[in-house]
Amino acid sequence: MSGAPTDADALDGRLHGDLPVTDAGSAAAIVADDATVLTSGFGSVGYPKLVPLALADSDRDLSLTLVSSGNVGEEIDVSLVESGAVARRSTYQSSSVARAATNDREVAFTDRNASAIGDEVQYGGMVDPDVAVVEAVAVGEDWFVPSTSLGATPAFVEAADELIVEVNRAQPLGLAALHDVHRPDAPPDRGPIPLSGPGDRIGTAHVAFDPGKLVAVVETDRPDSTYTFRDPTDDDLAIAANLGTFLAAEMERSPAFEDAVHLQFGVGSLGNALMGELMDLEFGGRDVVYFGELIQDGLLDMLDAGRLECASATSLALTAEGQERLFADVERYAEDVVLRPADVSNHAGLIDRFGVVGVNSAIEVDVYGNVNSTHVGGTRMINGVGGSADYNRNSLVTVCALPSTLKGGEVSRVVPMTFHVDHTEHDVDVFVTEQGVADVRGRSPVECAQLIIEQCAHPDVRPDLRAYLRDAREGGGHIPHDVKRAAEWDG
Amino acid sequence: MSGAPTDADALDGRLHGDLPVTDAGSAAAIVADDATVLTSGFGSVGYPKLVPLALADSDRDLSLTLVSSGNVGEEIDVSLVESGAVARRSTYQSSSVARAATNDREVAFTDRNASAIGDEVQYGGMVDPDVAVVEAVAVGEDWFVPSTSLGATPAFVEAADELIVEVNRAQPLGLAALHDVHRPDAPPDRGPIPLSGPGDRIGTAHVAFDPGKLVAVVETDRPDSTYTFRDPTDDDLAIAANLGTFLAAEMERSPAFEDAVHLQFGVGSLGNALMGELMDLEFGGRDVVYFGELIQDGLLDMLDAGRLECASATSLALTAEGQERLFADVERYAEDVVLRPADVSNHAGLIDRFGVVGVNSAIEVDVYGNVNSTHVGGTRMINGVGGSADYNRNSLVTVCALPSTLKGGEVSRVVPMTFHVDHTEHDVDVFVTEQGVADVRGRSPVECAQLIIEQCAHPDVRPDLRAYLRDAREGGGHIPHDVKRAAEWDG
Repeated sequence: MSGAPTDADALDGRLHGDLPVTDAGSAAAIVADDATVLTSGFGSVGYPKLVPLALADSDRDLSLTLVSSGNVGEEIDVSLVESGAVARRSTYQSSSVARAATNDREVAFTDRNASAIGDEVQYGGMVDPDVAVVEAVAVGEDWFVPSTSLGATPAFVEAADELIVEVNRAQPLGLAALHDVHRPDAPPDRGPIPLSGPGDRIGTAHVAFDPGKLVAVVETDRPDSTYTFRDPTDDDLAIAANLGTFLAAEMERSPAFEDAVHLQFGVGSLGNALMGELMDLEFGGRDVVYFGELIQDGLLDMLDAGRLECASATSLALTAEGQERLFADVERYAEDVVLRPADVSNHAGLIDRFGVVGVNSAIEVDVYGNVNSTHVGGTRMINGVGGSADYNRNSLVTVCALPSTLKGGEVSRVVPMTFHVDHTEHDVDVFVTEQGVADVRGRSPVECAQLIIEQCAHPDVRPDLRAYLRDAREGGGHIPHDVKRAAEWDG
Repeated sequence: MSGAPTDADALDGRLHGDLPVTDAGSAAAIVADDATVLTSGFGSVGYPKLVPLALADSDRDLSLTLVSSGNVGEEIDVSLVESGAVARRSTYQSSSVARAATNDREVAFTDRNASAIGDEVQYGGMVDPDVAVVEAVAVGEDWFVPSTSLGATPAFVEAADELIVEVNRAQPLGLAALHDVHRPDAPPDRGPIPLSGPGDRIGTAHVAFDPGKLVAVVETDRPDSTYTFRDPTDDDLAIAANLGTFLAAEMERSPAFEDAVHLQFGVGSLGNALMGELMDLEFGGRDVVYFGELIQDGLLDMLDAGRLECASATSLALTAEGQERLFADVERYAEDVVLRPADVSNHAGLIDRFGVVGVNSAIEVDVYGNVNSTHVGGTRMINGVGGSADYNRNSLVTVCALPSTLKGGEVSRVVPMTFHVDHTEHDVDVFVTEQGVADVRGRSPVECAQLIIEQCAHPDVRPDLRAYLRDAREGGGHIPHDVKRAAEWDG
C-alpha cells in the first residue's frame, strides 16, 4: 500500500502521489449514460456532491442506476433525481423529491436492509456495478480515507470497475481517527468478524483499492447536509420514560445484562430524544455500550458525561452543532467512537453476540405485532427499511417505540392490520408508546393483541380496536382477522 | 466431565455412573402442574416420548407451557395436547391435533424462528423455564449424548432448573458420531462461532450439564416417528428443472460460486424432490456442500453417489428407509454428516459466511414478493415459521420455490396481497414455480409484480392478476395496492 496512513493521527495533506485530479464535469463525463453508479453516503452524510451535481447539470440523456447504502444529501436525492437522470435507485432515501419520484414510479426503487446491500451488490446479483463515486478526506494512488460515513463503501469499491473520489476539504482530516475499515472476505471462505467488543478496532483508517480503477479525483469544499431534530414532544418524553421503566426491569431480569448493556436506537427525533433521556436512567453500575448504525447528538452528550463506554456505528448523523463539536475534538472522541462499514455495524452475527437491546420506531403497528416502517397505507414509501430490519431481527431484546397517534392524535398508529410488513410478528418483543409498554414475549397472537390494545393504543381508539378483535375472533383461527373490515379501518 | 465420551466411537453402554433411574410416571410426577417444560426434538425426531405420555395419562389438572425448538412426534403433539395438559406452546408443530388446538386457540401458541429459540428461552425472557426433558442415546452424571436431533437442546438444558433424560435404546449409540455440540457463550461476551466450513467439528458428541439438575433418567425403546414423502409430482419435477436452470446460470454469474456452492433446502415433499433432482444437475466441478437444517433422504443419495462434500444440519428428517440406511452405516455417514444445535446450523452469521443459496417453499406469495409460509388466509396456522426465516433473510441468494396452484389447480398460490407475511419483500431474490423463474433482484415492486405474474403465476390466473395490478397502479404509490379488492380475491 503506497503511502496509506498507518497512523491515522499522522495523516497530513489531502492528495498523495500521482493522481488523476480533474474537475467535476470531466469526472462526470466518464460515467456512461446508462451506468450503474454506487455512491458512498449513509445517514445523509459522507456522500459525493460535485460529480452528482455535474451529472444533473449535463444535457446528456442519462438513465442511471444509482445505489447508495443509506440516505444521501440533496445533491443526489434532489438535484440529480429532479434532472431525470436516475432511472433506478436503491436503497433508502430521505428527500421529498426522491420520495415523490419513488411513489410516482418515475424512479424504479428497490429496498434492502442496510447490512445486506454491500453483499447484494458485490456478490448477490442485485446490479452489475460500473463506477463507484465516493467522498474522502484524503486519497492516495491505492487508498482513500472516507469522510463522515462508511456504509457499504468498501464493498462498492471492490465491486465497481472504476472509481471516482471526491476529496472534500470541508471534512476534517482528523475523521481518519474514527474509521475502522474491515471488509469481510468473499463467501464461502469468509471468516468470522474478529471483533471482541463494539469499541475494538480490527481494520484500517483507509479503504484500499486496485489502483487501476481510479479514473478521477475531484476536489471540493462543499459541506455535508446536517440533521435538524425537533425538540422532544410530550409524547417523546413519555415514551422515553416508559422505555426507561422497561429497561430498568429488563436489566435486572437477564444474566446477559449483569455487567453491561448494549443499546441501539433508530434515527430520528424520537431516537434522539430517547438517547437524551438515557442520561437520566440508572444503569446500576453497568457499562453502557452503543452498538448501532448512527451516532446522534445524544450519544456525544452521554460520552461527555462519562455515562457511555463507547459507540460503534456507520455514520455521524449529527446536527450542525453536534458536527462542530465532534470536528473540534475528533481525536478525543475517536477514543470512544468507531465508524465501521454497514456490513459490520449492522451485522446479524455481531448484534447477536453483543446481546443488543434494539430500539426502533415505525409508521404503524398492528394488534398482532406486525410492523410497518416504510409504506403509509401499505402503498406510499416514506424512506426505506434501512437498518431497522437488522436490529429488529437479531437483537436479544427488540423494542418498537412509537407515539400511539399521528397528526395531532387524529390517526392511530395502532391498527387492526398493517398492509405492509417490514418486521413480522416473529421479530418484535416489546412495544412502547406514550401510553405504556406491551411485552408480548411468549404471548399468543390474541394475547398480543389484547396487550397492544390495552397498553399501547390511544384510549380514544381502544373501543374500536377491541370491537375489531372481538368480532374477528368469532371467525376463528390462530390469528383471527377480518380483512375486509381491516381494509375499511379509518381509525 | 466424569466419563463423558471423548471418543464418540468408543461409547459403550447406555447408563454411566450413579443415575436417578426411574419409571416414566415417577419422572412425570416431578413436573409441576403449571411447569414450563423445554423438550428436545426437531424435524419430528429426537424428542422425549414416555414422560409426555405419562403426563398425558395422569389425572392431574395440568397447565403446562411446552417449548420445543422444532416439531416433535405424536406423543407430544397428539397425546399430550389431546389430554388438555398443554396451555401454552412454542414453536412449530406438525400434527393435525396440535394445529386444530392452535387454530381453536385452546393452546396459546407463539412462533419464533428456529435459530432464535434457544437464546429467547435462555436469555431473552420468552419463558421462565423449569424443566428440560430430552431424549438421549446414553447418559452419565453430567453429560448425555443426544439422539436424532439437536435443535435448541443445549440452550434448553442450560436454561432449565431441572433435567429429565429419556434414554432410548431404539436409537443407536453410533449416533454419537454425528453430533457436534457447540453452544455459544452468553452475550455480550459471546465470541464468534469458530466454524471454518460446514463439515468442521468444533464441539463435543455430548451435551454437558450441571449434575445437580438431573432429577430422573427413564429408559425406553420406543422409536421415533419417521417421515413419509409422496413421490414427486409433475409440478415438483418442473419446479426442480426450473431451479436447476437458474442455479446453473447463477453459478456462472458470481465469483462466490467459483469453487463451491453451499445449498439449503426446506423440508417437505417438494424439498425432498428438489434434493433428488440435484443428482442430475451439472455443477461444473464445483464442490457441493449442504448447510441447512434437516437431512433428508435425497442428501444420503447424493453422499452415496459422491456428489456431495458434506452436510450440516440439526435433525435427521428421514423416511423409515432412510433412517434404516443411516443407522446401519452411521460411522461412515458421520464422516460427512454433522448434526449441530439449531443456533449453529441456522445461524445468521454462518449462513452469511458460507454464501448459502437457500431454497424454501411457502403457502403463497403475493405479486410484490411478500411470502406467507405459516397462515392460510392470514388466519389459520399450518406448522410454524421454523428455519425458513433464517435462510430467507441471510442467504446470499434466496429462492422461494412453490407450485403456482394448490388443490389440483383450483387455488392460485400467487395472490395480489398476502394477509400474513413471514418473509418480507426485502428478503426473497428469486421465485420459482413449475411455470418459470422470476428473478426480482434489483427490481421495483411493480417490475417484481410483472415478473411474478408473467413467469410464475398459472396462466389461468394471469388475466385476473394483471387486471389487479393495472387497476391498483391507477391508485398510485410505490407499492400500488387496492386492499379492499385484494380482500375479495378468490383466485
